[in-house]
Amino acid sequence: MIEDKNQQKTQLSDLGEFGLIEHLTKNFEIKQKSTIKGIGDDAAVLNFEDKRIVVSTDLLVEGVHFDLSYMPLKHLGYKAIIVNLSDIYAMNAEATQVTVSIAVSNRFPLEALEDLYAGIETAAHVYGIDVVGGDTTSSNKGLLISVTAIGEVKPGNEVYRDGAKPNDLLVVSGDLGAAYMGLQVLEREKEVYKVNPNSQPDLEPYTYIVERQLKPEARKDIVKLLADLDVKPTAMIDVSDGLSSEIMHLCSQSKVGCDLYENKIPLDPQVISTCEEFNLDSTTVALNGGEDYELLFTVSQEDFPKIKANPNLSVIGFIKEEKEGLHLVTRAETRIPIKAQGWKNFND
Amino acid sequence: MIEDKNQQKTQLSDLGEFGLIEHLTKNFEIKQKSTIKGIGDDAAVLNFEDKRIVVSTDLLVEGVHFDLSYMPLKHLGYKAIIVNLSDIYAMNAEATQVTVSIAVSNRFPLEALEDLYAGIETAAHVYGIDVVGGDTTSSNKGLLISVTAIGEVKPGNEVYRDGAKPNDLLVVSGDLGAAYMGLQVLEREKEVYKVNPNSQPDLEPYTYIVERQLKPEARKDIVKLLADLDVKPTAMIDVSDGLSSEIMHLCSQSKVGCDLYENKIPLDPQVISTCEEFNLDSTTVALNGGEDYELLFTVSQEDFPKIKANPNLSVIGFIKEEKEGLHLVTRAETRIPIKAQGWKNFND
Repeated sequence: MIEDKNQQKTQLSDLGEFGLIEHLTKNFEIKQKSTIKGIGDDAAVLNFEDKRIVVSTDLLVEGVHFDLSYMPLKHLGYKAIIVNLSDIYAMNAEATQVTVSIAVSNRFPLEALEDLYAGIETAAHVYGIDVVGGDTTSSNKGLLISVTAIGEVKPGNEVYRDGAKPNDLLVVSGDLGAAYMGLQVLEREKEVYKVNPNSQPDLEPYTYIVERQLKPEARKDIVKLLADLDVKPTAMIDVSDGLSSEIMHLCSQSKVGCDLYENKIPLDPQVISTCEEFNLDSTTVALNGGEDYELLFTVSQEDFPKIKANPNLSVIGFIKEEKEGLHLVTRAETRIPIKAQGWKNFND
Repeated sequence: MIEDKNQQKTQLSDLGEFGLIEHLTKNFEIKQKSTIKGIGDDAAVLNFEDKRIVVSTDLLVEGVHFDLSYMPLKHLGYKAIIVNLSDIYAMNAEATQVTVSIAVSNRFPLEALEDLYAGIETAAHVYGIDVVGGDTTSSNKGLLISVTAIGEVKPGNEVYRDGAKPNDLLVVSGDLGAAYMGLQVLEREKEVYKVNPNSQPDLEPYTYIVERQLKPEARKDIVKLLADLDVKPTAMIDVSDGLSSEIMHLCSQSKVGCDLYENKIPLDPQVISTCEEFNLDSTTVALNGGEDYELLFTVSQEDFPKIKANPNLSVIGFIKEEKEGLHLVTRAETRIPIKAQGWKNFND
């Protein structure tokens, strides 16, 4: 945990007049042509010419969205960016800039924030985006990160949640449930550590699912793939809260129903084996786990030949008329209504 | 205080599947031509055609930036928007959209957040901007508001902090120090209330300064005025942290020095009288108080005739060569170096 690190520490109050945000971001490069002015003025200045702009924002709160006892700060910085880029890609847009604001208590030394910003910088580098603004302030308790992501899209290429039509195919990228199962493993190891701080966790059987939790990726590659395949989804959303929740958003906004096939839901073998170990149903985990940051989208039937052979994409169901409702078609061929999840964060 | 209100309360956890942000923003109107898609998808979609975009972001944290014991939530919502718009106007740009994210603990009922959003909506209405996105999540403690403001500016019209030249005039809009003195009055009344909850504060002599603290305005009108006068500032910054801090930013980025004349600093009579009552030096309050949200800018001497008669603008000094340093020229004609302030938030 961050307080236990035995290394040189610089108190945030020692920084004096020198702006913390400038210190943390001084080595960040500007790569996007659209960035005219980045950090260091009252606002960033951007130039998109004939493109449309997409803007998305998210908050990550310590103790709600992350636990620093197993989430290294560098990973957290990386993940905070990814979570937001995922929303931009879900518009079928290209991410170009982010602003990052943090509220942080005095218990964090400067070096901890440097780790956080190293993760932010890595994500910016990997995804080719610019960090163009931010704010750094103190908090009474813990760490909070607010990211706003900006992207560009050619007019007409943007994909909303509300365009799905009956008979469209329901498609998802990658696989589901891994980040949730990674979290279960990390939570278990935390409990073991509390009892015996000398225990060495063996995470080897869980490398994929733990990485999906600690260092998720956003599917920039899928947006490019769809463009290369000349497929424009009719509707799209990213899978942040779990597949069932995202299907409900997409169908509700598109005013359609759907059939989701349990046997088509893509699961990694590590998810299946870890679910068995934890005595959890893997379909429930995929439906409700969340934090997958995959893209869920619909395409018209005529695009099926373009996507069917692609290992990155799984057709998991069909869009139906609104009156037919939303159902999971199980392996036993029974039809179970897809139900609403409560809003977990406020139920504690 | 918010917990004491004796009215119908809806727990946030009762909202179930219905998104809080959608509930809070469902009556918000879209007014800007550039807003193509607002709240309700993964991201907002904006269209600026041949304009450049300016983006700024700020965090407001309970207990650090505001105290709910004297800050009504509606005012807080209004102020959270104003603080960010001020940064957009400081670029000589027109504010067009905001995204608003909040982290909030369970102690706030839905009705409290509705008050907050009523203030946000009022600010959006008064300033003609659209609320196009946001995120709502729980926090372990208190309330935190993150706002990102977006604006547009004709290419070439943007004004940075780094363009001031020797012999330029240093100009400020409005008057300074009032928000800080309003805070002193409110803090005093809070202490009185703690001792005697039945006391009725008489804020009549302090109406202007209390309003400057609780319901500040951003100087959209000054950006329009400068355009009408055909004056393009050489450099501009908004006064959020106090005049001395902003002068230092502007001069440091422009690589210039300056002389600031104490007797030219614009002060409202209520600031002068309240400073006397609190035994504070009004110049110190204007220099270090902060939260004025006025615009501080420099213009070339040839623009002096255009601005000299304007009651909204005060010429308070001159830009000098960098090697001459930054000085306050007092009423007694002594020259005092303008010094750095520590970063207050991290010093507690």
